[in-house]
Amino acid sequence: MKIQTIGLVLNPLKPESEALVPEVVAACAEAGVALVAEPSSHLAPHRASSSAEFLQAADALLVLGGDGTILRSLRYMEGRLRPILGVNLGTLGFLAECTPDNLREAVARLARGEYRLEERMLLTARLEGDEEVHTALNEVVITRGSFPRMVQADSYVDGALAVRYDGDGMVVATPTGSTAYSLSTGGPIIAPGLDCLVLSPICPHTLSARPLVVSAQSCLRLEVRPRGEDGGMLFSVDGQQCRFLREASVIHIGCEPQRLPFVRFGEDRFFALLRNKLSKWGGEAPFDA
Amino acid sequence: MKIQTIGLVLNPLKPESEALVPEVVAACAEAGVALVAEPSSHLAPHRASSSAEFLQAADALLVLGGDGTILRSLRYMEGRLRPILGVNLGTLGFLAECTPDNLREAVARLARGEYRLEERMLLTARLEGDEEVHTALNEVVITRGSFPRMVQADSYVDGALAVRYDGDGMVVATPTGSTAYSLSTGGPIIAPGLDCLVLSPICPHTLSARPLVVSAQSCLRLEVRPRGEDGGMLFSVDGQQCRFLREASVIHIGCEPQRLPFVRFGEDRFFALLRNKLSKWGGEAPFDA
Amino acid sequence: MKIQTIGLVLNPLKPESEALVPEVVAACAEAGVALVAEPSSHLAPHRASSSAEFLQAADALLVLGGDGTILRSLRYMEGRLRPILGVNLGTLGFLAECTPDNLREAVARLARGEYRLEERMLLTARLEGDEEVHTALNEVVITRGSFPRMVQADSYVDGALAVRYDGDGMVVATPTGSTAYSLSTGGPIIAPGLDCLVLSPICPHTLSARPLVVSAQSCLRLEVRPRGEDGGMLFSVDGQQCRFLREASVIHIGCEPQRLPFVRFGEDRFFALLRNKLSKWGGEAPFDA
Amino acid sequence: MKIQTIGLVLNPLKPESEALVPEVVAACAEAGVALVAEPSSHLAPHRASSSAEFLQAADALLVLGGDGTILRSLRYMEGRLRPILGVNLGTLGFLAECTPDNLREAVARLARGEYRLEERMLLTARLEGDEEVHTALNEVVITRGSFPRMVQADSYVDGALAVRYDGDGMVVATPTGSTAYSLSTGGPIIAPGLDCLVLSPICPHTLSARPLVVSAQSCLRLEVRPRGEDGGMLFSVDGQQCRFLREASVIHIGCEPQRLPFVRFGEDRFFALLRNKLSKWGGEAPFDA
Repeated sequence: MKIQTIGLVLNPLKPESEALVPEVVAACAEAGVALVAEPSSHLAPHRASSSAEFLQAADALLVLGGDGTILRSLRYMEGRLRPILGVNLGTLGFLAECTPDNLREAVARLARGEYRLEERMLLTARLEGDEEVHTALNEVVITRGSFPRMVQADSYVDGALAVRYDGDGMVVATPTGSTAYSLSTGGPIIAPGLDCLVLSPICPHTLSARPLVVSAQSCLRLEVRPRGEDGGMLFSVDGQQCRFLREASVIHIGCEPQRLPFVRFGEDRFFALLRNKLSKWGGEAPFDA
Repeated sequence: MKIQTIGLVLNPLKPESEALVPEVVAACAEAGVALVAEPSSHLAPHRASSSAEFLQAADALLVLGGDGTILRSLRYMEGRLRPILGVNLGTLGFLAECTPDNLREAVARLARGEYRLEERMLLTARLEGDEEVHTALNEVVITRGSFPRMVQADSYVDGALAVRYDGDGMVVATPTGSTAYSLSTGGPIIAPGLDCLVLSPICPHTLSARPLVVSAQSCLRLEVRPRGEDGGMLFSVDGQQCRFLREASVIHIGCEPQRLPFVRFGEDRFFALLRNKLSKWGGEAPFDA
Repeated sequence: MKIQTIGLVLNPLKPESEALVPEVVAACAEAGVALVAEPSSHLAPHRASSSAEFLQAADALLVLGGDGTILRSLRYMEGRLRPILGVNLGTLGFLAECTPDNLREAVARLARGEYRLEERMLLTARLEGDEEVHTALNEVVITRGSFPRMVQADSYVDGALAVRYDGDGMVVATPTGSTAYSLSTGGPIIAPGLDCLVLSPICPHTLSARPLVVSAQSCLRLEVRPRGEDGGMLFSVDGQQCRFLREASVIHIGCEPQRLPFVRFGEDRFFALLRNKLSKWGGEAPFDA
Repeated sequence: MKIQTIGLVLNPLKPESEALVPEVVAACAEAGVALVAEPSSHLAPHRASSSAEFLQAADALLVLGGDGTILRSLRYMEGRLRPILGVNLGTLGFLAECTPDNLREAVARLARGEYRLEERMLLTARLEGDEEVHTALNEVVITRGSFPRMVQADSYVDGALAVRYDGDGMVVATPTGSTAYSLSTGGPIIAPGLDCLVLSPICPHTLSARPLVVSAQSCLRLEVRPRGEDGGMLFSVDGQQCRFLREASVIHIGCEPQRLPFVRFGEDRFFALLRNKLSKWGGEAPFDA
């Protein structure tokens, strides 16, 4: 599909993001693509702006920022998911496909329809007793509200109790999220195309606890309760929408029928990026040796 | 399907297995089911008997033994997979569905067609330069031939280098195998129905190494080479077929198109069994407290 | 040493604790031991009571409660550590030595001096810019104030930068604490007599991060800073004294010269208790198999 | 102490090692130090040469090679440990102190006594029923003889059963060995000066198994037995002396009273080296990003 209107999303916390706007304007003019953008002063970090209506006209989103800004873009599009082209401003990410250096060419390709889409699955999460359905590209996390109170989490898969762990909480991640927080908790890396969810305990007190991978078609129910009277828990969606839960709660998790499409120009680079990330995550050397 | 002929497979190392034969004979007679059995004296442990031809007539296999005997049965059926009903003789397994106590009822149900089948995916593995295609229900393992020589393993997914790890070797496991050796190496638990493979490094020297879950439709290529001149490597299929590799080798791993059907009578018990196993794997308590 | 005066410490949250007081009174009368006790109504959970002066006269402390109550007793004794006899009211702990059933005999033995002392090392922690020196039997923890903000922790050992990890925080534990929270984060088990501290990263983003064991004679300096502007961190001592740190902070950790003596009657049971705990931590089985 | 006679140890597998000999000869001549060397053609890799008598006259050993050659030098000195100066020929090691570039200056400093010694603890291991006492700088390992047979290992500390694990085996490492194979099995990093041993299970089937750190003054007894009839086990000392054990065996492990002194010129670099290693162990990046 040839992209005719691009919606621009900035990272209001990064000046480099706004500094790139003239380049974007020029690239769109050159390519004959219309551009819709929110006034950056209206941007509130970490929350979906109510002014997201400006994006309704866009065929695709151009996101100037890292994974965090891409995650925020998802909140802007609820209801009608459109392709995202991420422009990487800093360290390499799994989701961004271009850099400021090849921005013009990238926009030109969008205009000519010379790209492919890589679809990533999303999960949905709903607190029992609540109407709102949250959508996550990476993960939902339930974690203790304050140290040292623990969380007891019973995980049900399609109605059957699967695992019951005590600890600092649980992560339920998509394959996309498997290389984010879930990995720090001991979860496996999951190739992007696989339709599954991974449940990883956070610092489990139960020593035989292990991450569990289930089909994305599964209906998950997490029954979570804080240990201790003054505990409470945090419920977090993609590290952006956060809510304090004072009491035992039930969370329903499933798979969003729509997938989030990412614009790709070349070959799949997931594993090359992964090796790069694994290497970086090994830490920095103090000297050459 | 109503089962008309049952093929009997014993564990020749367990006397309880042979002791149960009269009970099986009586159960089959009662249910009007024909029974074909290999002469137990011909059974060689850990290897597929060439006398497995007797099983050609069987509609289903009745296996008296644990997971090891069930894995051996798979080797007997190469070419035409038929339903397996495992009879659990000792500690609880994930694959067996009945115990000696309810053997008669189980055979009667087979005869009446009152059962369902739970299909498990199998993986195939072939050493490059070799004709033989090995089939595994649990896993293939490449491991160092002798301590302390290491194995360097480069894992390619659909032609792209995915991960490159040094260490004691690699496990590639099915979901069924995810609760066997793969779990000991740090691999995740994978729900049985999911179509995927998990690659887990064994004692990796590469500290950022993590297990990797990929689609079962992926073509995997493992390039493995021993470090040190006197090393060598072991290639093992389901812990039963084992082969010494002196030099750098390439292993092609994929998904077997046929699935292995297991006879089930009641509801899915995977997670209840899993919690039981996790609990047992926690070790035995020296006293009550 | 023959104990002449016992100081009684209760767990005000457990009614069983107060219910045992008459038994304690009788046991002391029988053994000819004086008893000093705080009025239970004055007890505030999780905080050292200012009325702890009543304990000044005690030669030893009798603690009716679990590890939490024992940890609280430590705060009551600051300045002059005296032997602790823990009475286990619920699940087995590493620190308690008797149960309600053998309480009378235990008090009689204290009076006759028929016991030995097992000394456990304590660590001290001080926030730079602060006067207060905290004493911990188990651990100090620095952890993120709210999900998903991370903590960057640089650990210096005797002035040299040792490890630099990003993640959910760091635990610095004594051998006694090595079987508590530190174990959940992936730390090793440390035999009680060893003079050392273990630094364990909590859900490290740095994948090559590993727990580090250093001598108790080391001077540790933790430079910690929250990632993100709205993060903050929690600093916690034995899971009881907790403080919110808004900004980058420095924590000095060392070894308390005094050791905390625990009353023991029989042989060392650490490893038998450990195996029991490891077994329990394996989780509960849903049915016998 | 001013060094008067240097004993030279080469790595016969590395040509760079022998190529450096003229430089060593010149450095010793310049510094007025006598040099004793074994004829390199007599060197057998991985085994103590009986011709090690030539080293009797040496006050210190100059080792041209990596950690493996240093470990081999230890075998040459049994009975009378002398300072080791390691010359690093390839990748950075924890034990070597100089490089070919500063070899002359290093030998001159030895001659003038301008160095300090860093002592590392050694462990001793003896198979019950055997006379020979093995000395290890890094670790002893008990591991399965052939896949997939497991090893059951009961570890006793000072006569008391400590932990009982099934799996691929056990490592008992010194602090020096804690950054070698033990680390790959999940063991902690231990600062060099600490007097302790770490027992780490290898791929434990027991999911609650964790590494255990005990005092170096402990007497350890490992009761190990192979599972399965055709298993056998490998007993290995510093990855160099290896022995096949067909049957259940008992291994006594303790602390060698002598320590192995390493020549050091500057400040302690352990943690800088560690961060470098952790970073390298994070793997290599496929491209810059």
